[in-house]
Amino acid sequence: MADLHTTPWTTSEFEERLRAKGKAYHINHPYNVMLSAGKANKDQIRGWVANRYYYQQAIPLKDGAVLSACDDREVRKEWLQRIRDHDGYDDDPGGIEAWIKLGQAVGLSREEITDMRHVLPGVRYAVDAYVNFARTRPWQESVCASLTELFAPAIHKQRLATWPEHYQWIDPTGLQYFRNRVQQARRDVEHGLSITLDYFDTVELQHRALDILQFKLEVLWQISDAMSVRYGLPDWKPLPKLEDAAFEPPTAATAAQATQAVREPVTA
Amino acid sequence: MADLHTTPWTTSEFEERLRAKGKAYHINHPYNVMLSAGKANKDQIRGWVANRYYYQQAIPLKDGAVLSACDDREVRKEWLQRIRDHDGYDDDPGGIEAWIKLGQAVGLSREEITDMRHVLPGVRYAVDAYVNFARTRPWQESVCASLTELFAPAIHKQRLATWPEHYQWIDPTGLQYFRNRVQQARRDVEHGLSITLDYFDTVELQHRALDILQFKLEVLWQISDAMSVRYGLPDWKPLPKLEDAAFEPPTAATAAQATQAVREPVTA
Repeated sequence: MADLHTTPWTTSEFEERLRAKGKAYHINHPYNVMLSAGKANKDQIRGWVANRYYYQQAIPLKDGAVLSACDDREVRKEWLQRIRDHDGYDDDPGGIEAWIKLGQAVGLSREEITDMRHVLPGVRYAVDAYVNFARTRPWQESVCASLTELFAPAIHKQRLATWPEHYQWIDPTGLQYFRNRVQQARRDVEHGLSITLDYFDTVELQHRALDILQFKLEVLWQISDAMSVRYGLPDWKPLPKLEDAAFEPPTAATAAQATQAVREPVTA
Repeated sequence: MADLHTTPWTTSEFEERLRAKGKAYHINHPYNVMLSAGKANKDQIRGWVANRYYYQQAIPLKDGAVLSACDDREVRKEWLQRIRDHDGYDDDPGGIEAWIKLGQAVGLSREEITDMRHVLPGVRYAVDAYVNFARTRPWQESVCASLTELFAPAIHKQRLATWPEHYQWIDPTGLQYFRNRVQQARRDVEHGLSITLDYFDTVELQHRALDILQFKLEVLWQISDAMSVRYGLPDWKPLPKLEDAAFEPPTAATAAQATQAVREPVTA
C-alpha cells in the first residue's frame, strides 16, 4: 500500500470505490454469462441450483455469527430480519424454501436439494470460508463482506429478464426467489452500507473494507469456478471427478497415456 | 448406508479399505499427471509450488490443533515430531524451508513464496477446510484425515523419478523436500494408521473413517482443480481471473458476445 492517500476518502468517494468492485462480481463469471445467454443445458442449471443451495442454507449461519459478535442492540434488531427472510416467518415461507421451489422447478427433488448430495467440495469450502470469516472477525467486517448485495439486484433482474425466454421448460413461478431478493437486497444493502461507511473511517480501514469486499467477491467467483470444473462451459470440458479417477497411478511410462484421458474426460 | 455389514471389518480388511481409497489420490489428478509427464510449462510448475506452499505452511497449524485436542500424552509426544519436521529443529531447517528451496529452484523468490501472493482462493479455502476440520473434530478424526500419507511416498518417488529428466532447468538439489518426505511419510503413516485401526472399531466408525479419508482426498483434489482453472492443462484453457473481469456486466443482448470471451480468455 505504498500509494496510500493521507486523508480518508469522503463518504461518497468511499462508496464509489466499494461500488467499483462490482466489475469483479460473479455476474461476469463465464458460468453466469452462460446461464443468462441461454447456453446452459439442464445439468448445468440443475448443478448451479443444487450447489447454490449450500450458499443459501449457510446465510442464516453467517448471520447468526454476526448477531453473536455484535454488541449493538439496534443493529441486532435490524440484522435479525435477514435470518427471518431466509428461514421464514408468519406466512412467509422464506428464501431457503423459495430456493427449494426453484430447484423443483428445474427438475430436482426436494430431497436431493436439501441433503446436499450434489454440493461440490470446491463450493462447500468457499461458503464455509465465508461463514468462518463471520465467526472469527469483528461484526462490522462481516457487515462489509455482505456488501456484494450492492450488485445482487442486477444479477436477479438479469435472471428474471433472460431465463423465461431461454429456458421455457422452467415453470416461471419457480423464479419467485429472484423477485423477492430484488427488493430485499436493496433494503439490506442500505443498512450494511451505512454501517460500513460509518465504521471504516480511516485510510487504513477504508482499504481494509475494500479487501474484505474483494474476499467476498472471490468466494462467489470460486463457487462459479468449481461449478465450471464439474459441469463445464460452452467449448470448455469438465475435469474428471475424483470418483472417476479409477485408473492406476501413472508411472513415467503411462503418464503420457493418462494425459490423453484429460482430453476425453470421463463425465457422469 | 443400507448395505452396512453387521460386524466390523478385521484390522487387515479395514486397512485394505483405507488403502483402496488411494485411487482417488491426487496422483491421478490431470494436473499431477501433466507435471509427471513433463508436459507442464514453467508457469504451471511455479504456480503449483507457490500454491502448495500454502498447504505446507498450514500443516503445523493443523498439527497444533491435533495437539490441542489430544488428551493422550504419549500420542502428543510422538505427534510433536511432525511440527518439528516442518518447522525445523537442531540442524534440520525443516520441511517448510525445504519447500522454499524448491520454490527458489523453480525460479520463485523467497519473498513471493512466503508472502503467498500467488495463492489462489480455491486453494486457500480447501487448505483452511482441513485446518478447521482439525480445530473442530476429535483428534482421532484428524489423525485419520492425515492418512493420505499412505499414498504420499508414491507421489514423491514419482516426482523424483520424472522431474529431473523432464525439467532439466530445475536444480535437482531443490528436490530435497521430496527425498525427505519419502522416509518421513512412511514413519508418520505407521503411527497414524495404528491409531486409526485401533480407534475406529465399530461398523459405523469404520465407515466414518472412510468418509474422513474421502474428505481429505477431496481437499487435495480441489487444490489441483483450482490450479487447473488458473494455470490450465494441456488442451484445456485457464478460466479468466476475477481481476480480469473488467468488462461491463452483460445484458441479455451482450451476453452472447461475452460468451465469446470464454473461448479466448484473458491470461496474465
